Amino acid sequence: MDEAGQGDRPDGDGALFRAARIQDVARLADVSTATVSRALATPERVSPEARARVLEAIAKTGYVPNPAARTLRSQKTYMVLVVLPDLSNTFFSKILRGIEETLFEAGYGMIISDLDGSPAKEAHFAAFTAAGRVDGAILLNGHLFGQSRDGEGQPARITIPLVALCEAIPGADIPQIEIDNRAAASRMTQHLAGLGHSSIAYVSGPAINVLERERFQGFKEGLQAAGLPYDPALVIPGDYTIEAGVAAGERLVAQATRPTAVFCTSDEMAIGLMRTVLSAGLRVPEDISVAGFDDIDFAAVAEPSLTTIRQPRRELGQAAATALIDLLQGRTTPKRIRLETELVVRDSVAPLPR
Amino acid sequence: MDEAGQGDRPDGDGALFRAARIQDVARLADVSTATVSRALATPERVSPEARARVLEAIAKTGYVPNPAARTLRSQKTYMVLVVLPDLSNTFFSKILRGIEETLFEAGYGMIISDLDGSPAKEAHFAAFTAAGRVDGAILLNGHLFGQSRDGEGQPARITIPLVALCEAIPGADIPQIEIDNRAAASRMTQHLAGLGHSSIAYVSGPAINVLERERFQGFKEGLQAAGLPYDPALVIPGDYTIEAGVAAGERLVAQATRPTAVFCTSDEMAIGLMRTVLSAGLRVPEDISVAGFDDIDFAAVAEPSLTTIRQPRRELGQAAATALIDLLQGRTTPKRIRLETELVVRDSVAPLPR
Repeated sequence: MDEAGQGDRPDGDGALFRAARIQDVARLADVSTATVSRALATPERVSPEARARVLEAIAKTGYVPNPAARTLRSQKTYMVLVVLPDLSNTFFSKILRGIEETLFEAGYGMIISDLDGSPAKEAHFAAFTAAGRVDGAILLNGHLFGQSRDGEGQPARITIPLVALCEAIPGADIPQIEIDNRAAASRMTQHLAGLGHSSIAYVSGPAINVLERERFQGFKEGLQAAGLPYDPALVIPGDYTIEAGVAAGERLVAQATRPTAVFCTSDEMAIGLMRTVLSAGLRVPEDISVAGFDDIDFAAVAEPSLTTIRQPRRELGQAAATALIDLLQGRTTPKRIRLETELVVRDSVAPLPR
Repeated sequence: MDEAGQGDRPDGDGALFRAARIQDVARLADVSTATVSRALATPERVSPEARARVLEAIAKTGYVPNPAARTLRSQKTYMVLVVLPDLSNTFFSKILRGIEETLFEAGYGMIISDLDGSPAKEAHFAAFTAAGRVDGAILLNGHLFGQSRDGEGQPARITIPLVALCEAIPGADIPQIEIDNRAAASRMTQHLAGLGHSSIAYVSGPAINVLERERFQGFKEGLQAAGLPYDPALVIPGDYTIEAGVAAGERLVAQATRPTAVFCTSDEMAIGLMRTVLSAGLRVPEDISVAGFDDIDFAAVAEPSLTTIRQPRRELGQAAATALIDLLQGRTTPKRIRLETELVVRDSVAPLPR
């Protein structure tokens, strides 16, 4: 197999193609060569329609702009890196859609990396970012390159604009887009208490995670607002995954005295926990109410359907991309943006039976 | 806010930092400057441990290798693009993990793009790829850049190695890694028939998708092998999403005479369909058996747990990355690799009651 690796080329017969030139692209796209150059160098100055035509013509002709020359000239790549803590959590899908559509409209492409807590991968991407392979980055993993989540270590010296999304980064002087996790958790706790539940378990996220710290604080505040005592024995450690929900469910099922409601700080955990509890012969919500957090797509079709906190996922992505574009194009942007959440009442939570 | 945008720098007081040099990186990583250069230019020639130390030191010092100079010199980026048709389908998460771990071990980073059927985005990434911003690409979207899924159009002239994964690309002269979709669908159909079901509905994927064409063929072959007639009235159009499953469920519920089993060609559709059917007061599997395809993480915790076809997702990702690395490093690789699937029997399918 030749390196070209495409079915449309004669196989190894030595036929030569004339390299496509900028004129070929301009003709096919029905624009001037200046517009082709602009579409590559300063895409925000070309209409989305013309840009799409140019890019299509580039793809069809196989025109190869010299990337090194272009980088040296414009110092721009028109690519943005999005850093996720865990790509396997379906929570991120709509956020990514919101980021991508906003970036694309402004002429930027999105590339994604899941750093997965690996220091080696993290260093790889810090170098990639520091080397200017992207124009900016949106961080959803709760820390700057080179630092731990609790702010230890020296952050990597990165000179491109950064934006934090969802997981705020304490002390980082970059725009931060988030929801009010504490208020949302307090609201769900008070919702459960308002239905008569006084023994409410809490399934946590990872202790190191700023989301967990905020939600846990909100849980305790919600108990207090409802006049309920905080009982550490009702806190079950988790990490936002389905597996953690299954484990928490097993722990609940094994207890002699059980809480009447469980607040899981992610929908994935709530769905895993419901499954375990139902398998043990308990009923949801008749025997135990279960609440989640996030409103992922599976929440509405869970059995029973899941009462949860809806995060405005698409809008969060759009807001982060807008903030980054503002920085990339020399405008200012607010340091902190907080979007509203919504309590979504479905079938997995019911009033305490008398 | 200054462009640096990092909390560790004095704010606008004009303090200057000495730019980090390769010697600073070498000292911190405890290697020679030659090793630093090699870790950047030919990472496969440096041990993973040394590479990680170098990358970490680069991140810490803020050393910026000149990317344009490096690209001109080595013509390599050590990045691989992974193209997905729909990032929101959780099916891809373990595949991406398999790709990334294999690439990383060989010194390559992974970046992801969700082209989402958009021609403009597609053209953007074709140009990105043609321009050599990545060394290779793994295509999970069923077509070459510039072509439609049914092979129409002229493929973009891309000179870097490509590999197709999951969705085979008919006629493309590139390595293709897949499962035997036809055999798997036939097997599930025969499993349902073997439990006494003779009226089996089929919820399809998008008609244009090669996976759908293969699975539909397998469904018909399975019916034939079981001695059952094929009834077009039992085919419900879908597109692999939860929403399509909900819609298919609504259609089933409204029917006067219903099939006793439904084979959904994705787990997301099966979970959406089960939810609709249960909400209408029918029981799964007592009134209707439901089978899926893929074995996503939610399949085991669905209520009832989902009988499905397990795709070896992580291994599929590893095999595709291995094939691409072989091409990138000048080795040969098989044109077609097929991995085995597994029928996973859970609670959503039961024998037909007498």
